[in-house]
Amino acid sequence: MNSTKPLILIVNDDGINALGILSLTAVAKEFGEVIVVAPDKPQSGMGHAITLDSTLHIKKVNIEGVRAYSCSGTPVDCVKIAVNKLLDRKPDLIVSGINHGSNSSINVIYSGTMSAALEGALEGIPSVGFSLSDHSVEPDFTAAKHYAKKIIQQLLQDNYTKNICLNVNIPKLRTDLIAGIKVCRQAKGNWEEEYDERTDPMGRKYYWLTGKFVLEDEGTDTDEWALTNNYVSVVPVQQDVTNYAILNDIKKLENE
Amino acid sequence: MNSTKPLILIVNDDGINALGILSLTAVAKEFGEVIVVAPDKPQSGMGHAITLDSTLHIKKVNIEGVRAYSCSGTPVDCVKIAVNKLLDRKPDLIVSGINHGSNSSINVIYSGTMSAALEGALEGIPSVGFSLSDHSVEPDFTAAKHYAKKIIQQLLQDNYTKNICLNVNIPKLRTDLIAGIKVCRQAKGNWEEEYDERTDPMGRKYYWLTGKFVLEDEGTDTDEWALTNNYVSVVPVQQDVTNYAILNDIKKLENE
Repeated sequence: MNSTKPLILIVNDDGINALGILSLTAVAKEFGEVIVVAPDKPQSGMGHAITLDSTLHIKKVNIEGVRAYSCSGTPVDCVKIAVNKLLDRKPDLIVSGINHGSNSSINVIYSGTMSAALEGALEGIPSVGFSLSDHSVEPDFTAAKHYAKKIIQQLLQDNYTKNICLNVNIPKLRTDLIAGIKVCRQAKGNWEEEYDERTDPMGRKYYWLTGKFVLEDEGTDTDEWALTNNYVSVVPVQQDVTNYAILNDIKKLENE
Repeated sequence: MNSTKPLILIVNDDGINALGILSLTAVAKEFGEVIVVAPDKPQSGMGHAITLDSTLHIKKVNIEGVRAYSCSGTPVDCVKIAVNKLLDRKPDLIVSGINHGSNSSINVIYSGTMSAALEGALEGIPSVGFSLSDHSVEPDFTAAKHYAKKIIQQLLQDNYTKNICLNVNIPKLRTDLIAGIKVCRQAKGNWEEEYDERTDPMGRKYYWLTGKFVLEDEGTDTDEWALTNNYVSVVPVQQDVTNYAILNDIKKLENE
């Protein structure tokens, strides 16, 4: 092991067998020593969940010829156990994805991919999550790999804050049709849910979550605008969720 | 059903059988019609997880004589299915908790209690999560109920923004020893994890997550300061996690 090479930890939420993590591992290998720790099953929509009431199990696997482990927990568990138990030294960078599907706008808070990246930043390690706006069975990761390479290179070279966390979304386009990178804010948007109600063979009702995304933001400085206009969107993400804008308005609660 | 009475939806992350949700239901009943939808098992640390790859099951139960359902999903699932499927009208308020344990500082992002409240705000419903800094088996909820009552009353009376989401933490103190309510920002802090490694009867290793909270903030305007100084802390929480402070610094990525 050459300890002068950067150490890059790779995680995801689609699970250790997803195609996206293979693409990302192939890219990251060009920059240094790579270790993969990913969930042993799909964990989409797990948000910032952690395993508190049960145990974690780790299994050594082989991914692209690098040291790799599957973990029985959530994406955030993968980061925590990698950094605090499995790795001998602190990673220089944590890279999450490439997610199968977009994590722009409000999706960032449901996303296991982005929660894993945020957890990395909380550990004081620069972190980035990559998501491709493509839900097909065999997505073409060519453009996503191209931009992942550019951004990983930047993050390793430049002196960014250790708590940096980037949410990178790549449109479903050929590389030459992508307009470039746009740094933006999270668009305001939400899901309008519908529950598909069905009846099981025992006569009991059960429900599938379905819904459609509704953009509630006309800004041209958002991730949604960037993606619609063929850009790769980059949104910096933070751990502080205080709503400073209304802090003074609610001071009257103190008089209760 | 008197439709002029406010409709209050109660959720939690400790599960439908937790003591905290009984206390909260008892308080909320004084203000209007109450419906409880809570996980059928403990869901602490589930963050903003939602159930995407499997189905949800709902069961009618009885809590404090009000309409109540247990749900096989996460705290956020409970809010989504309540608002979009189970309820005939939009709730006037969503109240989450009372959580067994504090959700101050960085705990807000791991907390199912607070993620459920934030989901309520995303649905355009004023929402509040209550957490008591007490992990004992039979906590004394007297002070928590006292302050939950005051804050629920305020939220129903005053014309707050529909997207308001409050993170309320109550110190483990007798009501008369609490100094009052303090509106504050989320303290900067983090968990230093340690994994307790054990060996199962088959000789395989497994891990329990343990750790200690480290406060990294000396501000006197934080939730941690408030709790240490015997106040009930109230932090407004938002859905936008963009790190605006570094947005300009990272614009250079656009030149890649």
